[in-house]
Amino acid sequence: MTFNAVLDGLKNYEAGKPIELVVREYGINPAEVVKLASNENPRGCSPRVLAAIKEECSRAHLYPDDSMYELKEGLAKRYGVEKDNVIIGAGSDQVIGFALHAKAGPTQGIVMAGITFAMYEIYGKQTGAPILKTPSAMHNLDDFRALLAMHQGKIGVVFLCLPNNPLGECLDAQEVKSFLGEIDPNILVVVDGAYQEYARFKDPAKALDPKELIAQFPNVLYLGTFSKAYGLGGMRCGYGIGARGLIDTLHKLRPPFNITTVSLKAGIEALKDEAFVLTCMQENFQEMKRYEAEAKSLGFEFIESYTNFITLEFPEHKSASAIAQTLLEKGIIIRNLSAYGMNAVRVTIGTPEQNSRFFENFKRAYC
Amino acid sequence: MTFNAVLDGLKNYEAGKPIELVVREYGINPAEVVKLASNENPRGCSPRVLAAIKEECSRAHLYPDDSMYELKEGLAKRYGVEKDNVIIGAGSDQVIGFALHAKAGPTQGIVMAGITFAMYEIYGKQTGAPILKTPSAMHNLDDFRALLAMHQGKIGVVFLCLPNNPLGECLDAQEVKSFLGEIDPNILVVVDGAYQEYARFKDPAKALDPKELIAQFPNVLYLGTFSKAYGLGGMRCGYGIGARGLIDTLHKLRPPFNITTVSLKAGIEALKDEAFVLTCMQENFQEMKRYEAEAKSLGFEFIESYTNFITLEFPEHKSASAIAQTLLEKGIIIRNLSAYGMNAVRVTIGTPEQNSRFFENFKRAYC
Repeated sequence: MTFNAVLDGLKNYEAGKPIELVVREYGINPAEVVKLASNENPRGCSPRVLAAIKEECSRAHLYPDDSMYELKEGLAKRYGVEKDNVIIGAGSDQVIGFALHAKAGPTQGIVMAGITFAMYEIYGKQTGAPILKTPSAMHNLDDFRALLAMHQGKIGVVFLCLPNNPLGECLDAQEVKSFLGEIDPNILVVVDGAYQEYARFKDPAKALDPKELIAQFPNVLYLGTFSKAYGLGGMRCGYGIGARGLIDTLHKLRPPFNITTVSLKAGIEALKDEAFVLTCMQENFQEMKRYEAEAKSLGFEFIESYTNFITLEFPEHKSASAIAQTLLEKGIIIRNLSAYGMNAVRVTIGTPEQNSRFFENFKRAYC
Repeated sequence: MTFNAVLDGLKNYEAGKPIELVVREYGINPAEVVKLASNENPRGCSPRVLAAIKEECSRAHLYPDDSMYELKEGLAKRYGVEKDNVIIGAGSDQVIGFALHAKAGPTQGIVMAGITFAMYEIYGKQTGAPILKTPSAMHNLDDFRALLAMHQGKIGVVFLCLPNNPLGECLDAQEVKSFLGEIDPNILVVVDGAYQEYARFKDPAKALDPKELIAQFPNVLYLGTFSKAYGLGGMRCGYGIGARGLIDTLHKLRPPFNITTVSLKAGIEALKDEAFVLTCMQENFQEMKRYEAEAKSLGFEFIESYTNFITLEFPEHKSASAIAQTLLEKGIIIRNLSAYGMNAVRVTIGTPEQNSRFFENFKRAYC
């Protein structure tokens, strides 16, 4: 059978290795696997959320309220916007998909940082759009400006990942806003704030205010998620915030019941426990210092991170792939960034105990 | 901002009204709402599944095993196929989306019954494909043949919904197989078996065997779901079964982590409790007899149903819209089919108590 030509260029997203796979392939006891590969919140979700979703399981046979009224209301309140400024996705990933299918295509290219969230390109290619990456791996707005100037009239979507996954760096809000002011208002700018809770906590200069952004720039779509700070990665619940007209259009691409009944409840309850998020942020950056100290002590580079992970860059004679593999065989899963052309690994900041397990094994693998 | 032209023709799916909405709009106690609008299993899911998913909630922060190894293995065993013949979707809906994005487009039309599952058209329009419906509302294979002959070389996908939602009728397996044998092998035929458990139970002549279908017809994609017979509509978990090459291609369009961690567990456990499904089937068709008797006694038509719902067709002087609205205000939610050009309602078969509540109020509304 022949398929649509656009599929020829598609490849699959390489997900972080799941615990189940390590158990299957290396015969390691599941309780001993330390997964620091997918930027999951090592503390899990709020106990309040956990209690609520367990109870909600008894409604697993019922489709969710497809209007997602209560969750949208919670988010609108949280951000000081209206319910009609909010769209819910199965993870913010899905909202990326809506944005691209709405605005990108063979004559409408996509601009992004040299190394950034893989789904921009994966969903982008599904639309047949040219993918244009800046020469800098990290976000460099002059590089973005140059690409936009070079391809004037041929760009549909620009992605800013703030902070950036998988590198961890983050632009200042001020420079982002002046950049947004320069952009053709017919270009959709996706401001991916999946890790904004972390950046905002570490440095208020990085904090982006969706309300302000969408009021000033009707071509901006802000993305947020419950997967990271709220500890609900497995529930697939994220959102987009934008001007009413933009959100109405994206809704045309949203499949009905696109999150589960239990995920909907999780999101609603998660917004009621900001104290939990705060505790997670504190522990995250406390523990991150241990990684920075380790890098300094062993003499390799790291990228200053505004997220719940850290990118460790090794000198040439220490292979990131080999180190990641050695750790994997000990049941410690991290992300090897060699596919991005870097001799580096990305490690999620775990609990104090998980991080200790990592350091213990890492030192042996590295030295 | 301008958007891709294909969005101009899109409209949203009208979901069954959720309990939350009736509570909000009519001030009815949630415990008193009877929802017979979305073909959910009124018995919920298996107690075994419920226990497992409650426990799995403590893993809500972890992404699911993206290979979905265990669920695919369970389905492969269930149907006597290989793991590589299986793709998992967020409901079988999502697999419909993959199929259409792989194979439909502006020059590759989509053929379907006159009245059938709304998502075929909704996803279809996202690809810009012409939508071709048979003149008959129900599946009439001669009508399908005529459309295929008329548009030879211009059809990408054919949908057969067996049994059909929202009407309930079902073709015999034998006639389906001889029809499949006539079709150009470059056309993808989606055999939607979302309600096959019901049809198979009621009449073995309706039973389709995915193993046999895909062995004989590499252009067939069989769809199944945990939303109906397994009572897991709110968990968004379905699947496609097809020849290896087809499934590999569809995987290119599958977003990573497309079902939740809890949904994955739900599917895995659900396959281990077929006794629960059998009990549901028995009760469903027992209770359906009450609806048929009611129709006969009040003197209106119904469509013989091989599913967990029944379509009631009213004479001209009894407005389906008015009846549905009257019931809604009493907290009883059914589906008004007037949007399909029918003076009819679709009612999900509920528990004995729910059905009694329905009859009580329906009689008053109808007479």
